[in-house]
Amino acid sequence: MSTVGFIGLGTMGLPMAENLVKAGYDVVGYNRSAKRVDALVAARGRGASSIAEAVKDSDVVITVVPDSPDVEAVVMGEGGIFENSHPGQLVIDMSTIEPATARAVAEAGAKAGVRVLDAPVSGGEAGAVEGVLSIMVGGAAADFAAAKPVLEAVGRTIVHVGPHGAGQTVKAANQLMVAGHLQLLAEALVLAEASDVDPVVAVEVLGGGLAGSTVLDRKSENMLKRDFTAGFRLSLHHKDMGIVTAAAREAGVAIPLGSAVAQLIASLVARGDGGLDHSGLFKLTEELAGRSQ
Amino acid sequence: MSTVGFIGLGTMGLPMAENLVKAGYDVVGYNRSAKRVDALVAARGRGASSIAEAVKDSDVVITVVPDSPDVEAVVMGEGGIFENSHPGQLVIDMSTIEPATARAVAEAGAKAGVRVLDAPVSGGEAGAVEGVLSIMVGGAAADFAAAKPVLEAVGRTIVHVGPHGAGQTVKAANQLMVAGHLQLLAEALVLAEASDVDPVVAVEVLGGGLAGSTVLDRKSENMLKRDFTAGFRLSLHHKDMGIVTAAAREAGVAIPLGSAVAQLIASLVARGDGGLDHSGLFKLTEELAGRSQ
Amino acid sequence: MSTVGFIGLGTMGLPMAENLVKAGYDVVGYNRSAKRVDALVAARGRGASSIAEAVKDSDVVITVVPDSPDVEAVVMGEGGIFENSHPGQLVIDMSTIEPATARAVAEAGAKAGVRVLDAPVSGGEAGAVEGVLSIMVGGAAADFAAAKPVLEAVGRTIVHVGPHGAGQTVKAANQLMVAGHLQLLAEALVLAEASDVDPVVAVEVLGGGLAGSTVLDRKSENMLKRDFTAGFRLSLHHKDMGIVTAAAREAGVAIPLGSAVAQLIASLVARGDGGLDHSGLFKLTEELAGRSQ
Amino acid sequence: MSTVGFIGLGTMGLPMAENLVKAGYDVVGYNRSAKRVDALVAARGRGASSIAEAVKDSDVVITVVPDSPDVEAVVMGEGGIFENSHPGQLVIDMSTIEPATARAVAEAGAKAGVRVLDAPVSGGEAGAVEGVLSIMVGGAAADFAAAKPVLEAVGRTIVHVGPHGAGQTVKAANQLMVAGHLQLLAEALVLAEASDVDPVVAVEVLGGGLAGSTVLDRKSENMLKRDFTAGFRLSLHHKDMGIVTAAAREAGVAIPLGSAVAQLIASLVARGDGGLDHSGLFKLTEELAGRSQ
Repeated sequence: MSTVGFIGLGTMGLPMAENLVKAGYDVVGYNRSAKRVDALVAARGRGASSIAEAVKDSDVVITVVPDSPDVEAVVMGEGGIFENSHPGQLVIDMSTIEPATARAVAEAGAKAGVRVLDAPVSGGEAGAVEGVLSIMVGGAAADFAAAKPVLEAVGRTIVHVGPHGAGQTVKAANQLMVAGHLQLLAEALVLAEASDVDPVVAVEVLGGGLAGSTVLDRKSENMLKRDFTAGFRLSLHHKDMGIVTAAAREAGVAIPLGSAVAQLIASLVARGDGGLDHSGLFKLTEELAGRSQ
Repeated sequence: MSTVGFIGLGTMGLPMAENLVKAGYDVVGYNRSAKRVDALVAARGRGASSIAEAVKDSDVVITVVPDSPDVEAVVMGEGGIFENSHPGQLVIDMSTIEPATARAVAEAGAKAGVRVLDAPVSGGEAGAVEGVLSIMVGGAAADFAAAKPVLEAVGRTIVHVGPHGAGQTVKAANQLMVAGHLQLLAEALVLAEASDVDPVVAVEVLGGGLAGSTVLDRKSENMLKRDFTAGFRLSLHHKDMGIVTAAAREAGVAIPLGSAVAQLIASLVARGDGGLDHSGLFKLTEELAGRSQ
Repeated sequence: MSTVGFIGLGTMGLPMAENLVKAGYDVVGYNRSAKRVDALVAARGRGASSIAEAVKDSDVVITVVPDSPDVEAVVMGEGGIFENSHPGQLVIDMSTIEPATARAVAEAGAKAGVRVLDAPVSGGEAGAVEGVLSIMVGGAAADFAAAKPVLEAVGRTIVHVGPHGAGQTVKAANQLMVAGHLQLLAEALVLAEASDVDPVVAVEVLGGGLAGSTVLDRKSENMLKRDFTAGFRLSLHHKDMGIVTAAAREAGVAIPLGSAVAQLIASLVARGDGGLDHSGLFKLTEELAGRSQ
Repeated sequence: MSTVGFIGLGTMGLPMAENLVKAGYDVVGYNRSAKRVDALVAARGRGASSIAEAVKDSDVVITVVPDSPDVEAVVMGEGGIFENSHPGQLVIDMSTIEPATARAVAEAGAKAGVRVLDAPVSGGEAGAVEGVLSIMVGGAAADFAAAKPVLEAVGRTIVHVGPHGAGQTVKAANQLMVAGHLQLLAEALVLAEASDVDPVVAVEVLGGGLAGSTVLDRKSENMLKRDFTAGFRLSLHHKDMGIVTAAAREAGVAIPLGSAVAQLIASLVARGDGGLDHSGLFKLTEELAGRSQ
């Protein structure tokens, strides 16, 4: 299993593909804009000028594209992966999309004789570059076992969480929690500041107790400095909250806090702050307290 | 500064008083029900039969009572601390109450020539027994310095967070975040379970990334086992969310997620689940998804 | 303009088609289950055994089907309306669907040389039977003018509210408000009952002032009698809240109250109460107050 | 029963007192600022220079003051009504305050041998001037019967809704519904505008169906013209939402929509918009959609 077709060489995809090359895989990359393919070739990968070319001689195909419709087009569309794949080929979609779409792709794959896994990641661009992503995988256990060596070239924590779509569900749960933690931290810090409490000391003491969180460790400084350089853009978290909402709706689960924070993120994006880091929830919370700066 | 008057020998107060005895302080304790006083005497403290008796020869007076009206009565009421205190005495209220009440108590103290600190704690009964509480202190810096040796007998992280009331504000911010983290974890886990994801594996992977939190580390097992033995009772968190709501209202801060989770806790208490641990938010979230057991 | 093709003879569609017959139109009806077609024939309409047959000789085609994917299939799918329509034909979709889908259908219609209007209704089964529906129409003014005589056979208030999709947007706004009014009434009545206020008298005085609403006039009795016989089923309102959420997201509008009530409706459906009338929001509100019966 | 003591001659109180004069009552008015007393005297009432003077020879005493602490001071405080009242005197508090405070006042009245009613009003300044207020009365039926002739001089709809505090509960329920209806209308109109729908036509069609409300009839024009001249100020509705929140909390009722809209009103007040009419909720909703003007 040495040749990997790689579709989608964006901010995340390109460093992932490069890490596969470094791990000894023969990587054939395709991207809509050819420049990114050149970058892979410069890193000793091979370039493909079509999906067909990237797929046909590969043992494994990995896709990293922006959203559900992109996955549908690339995998199931005309000239897409399934039209060019061979029986038993393993397709690993590492995009963040709706669990329902992941299940539909897997079902179509079964008809096409192709094995499919959903394997979204967390860890951001830095995690992709360093090859230390967390990867949540949904699909058959045997396929997970087959994929694991490949995934180990790009990630550190690689977990099989359930059947098709389960990887996407866990990613959705992750994004729900992160959005909520950010907003709660913003509410706590704005309350502290509006009450003449030293927020730096507050963060220290809050972080030491039951209120501690990774978001507090990593994002409170951004908030207190009003430095909302992305990082993970609100526009992307907005896309992900759409997936969270759809996943909860499909599963029949009410998410009162999740849906409330989704509205706040939607508002930031509507106001033109989609390019800010998701810690920018602090900015809106401050404005809602009449404390904008 | 060797004699400490101690008012309120409840679940938290008694072990705190005992730790002061162990640290070499002469502790004179008072409690409405005399049994708790006997327990302190058995631990080599001294008993008082009135607030006056506990206050008059003490250098420092500590109060640990349930709610704002209790503090008002014990400190400012008839036969209370201020009526029996002497100039320069240091009163440390370690109850969890409204910041506004803490400020009113401090103001009344200033008129009575008494120094006052608000110093609520987190860490629960276990933290009180082991003497490792986190203590958030509001008041004058000099008074904080004077109080610190005493507080070190009962806590480990002892932080001066701002002027009078600031300790209570930080405690309110803490309870806001904890309630929210619990509910977000519940929403994530119910979503996972309703989507055929293995929740134990989901907790593992969620905890390793940006969604990690102390609540996830300490409370997810309770949720997945449906073991809601308190711990920290929902009825107490409900009281605290009242303080959070009042503090945010007074500070002019909107807390959309805080107020949403306050409603869920209110509902659990209204339904008779106030005696459960606050991780019982999972129970309501599961019922709202039609998955009650 | 005397022949009307009618696709979708369900609870709403059949009485609408019958009213067209009564108004003198030659109605050719098609429905997936043939029984409903027989009912139309018994009412002096004509039956069609395919969409093609209903469309090919009609001046106007009306569709009344459950959801967005149904409209896509019936109008744009294989063997659907556009494949069988002739230039200049007028297609009026009276289903409740996403504004974005309505716009996509209109665009596809333009390519096919067919004029399209979105014209969702309110007024329920009773309004359909009596021919007094409110109809909110989106599309070109000239097409609205052409459609108006036909629509007058099934509705009383017939309004042109804007371009393609605008009818669906107004319907979404309507469902958002209705859901919210129902929930607010439930919160008010449960608060009254839990406070020993006579709710019947409360309804009277609330209805007389600024809190008055059509929902209060028509639904408070259901709530107070706990008679949740549909009426308009929660499962349908749940579908519509999905449309509301999607429409708000697409338009970049935050709907904090709309999204909160959408969660409550989702919860009722998840718990198995989707068959209740939407006034069943009272039932959940009562349970959340620990007052279920 | 011809002499009425009247405490509180503000925007609402003065015209109410004047209407009592017009109806033939001997009205003795007291107000903290003497100017308002002069205005009553100019309208053929009598002036009092203390609460005692207004109370001692009156058959009925009416209070119309801003908030719970004002009622407590005026009725139960030093030099207040109960210190100067005579057995069997009837005290009618027409302020809007917490139901719990109303019950406490009634209880204190019973001890003082005084009959007490809570009788908050709706209808605004215009209703007070024209004597057409709606009055929601809590207390004993016999006392309501005794008060009715007096109340008929200032109101048109006068309803006995339950025991002590019930009038305030219904007023709270009223304010909860009105706030929610305003916000839902704002969400619907901003959604319409952001989707290129003509909002004037939208209002017309929404008002004709199940989404109709008195708020839509009276406040949509303000919203669409961005004319937020009070009217009923947001700062007052904010005070009232504090009462709603406290009443719900005390009654053990979750009010998810009520608490969500309370946050939005709190935000407007925090941002300095407390002087706007409560239809100003539209302004915030528009800003949250990035459409502020």
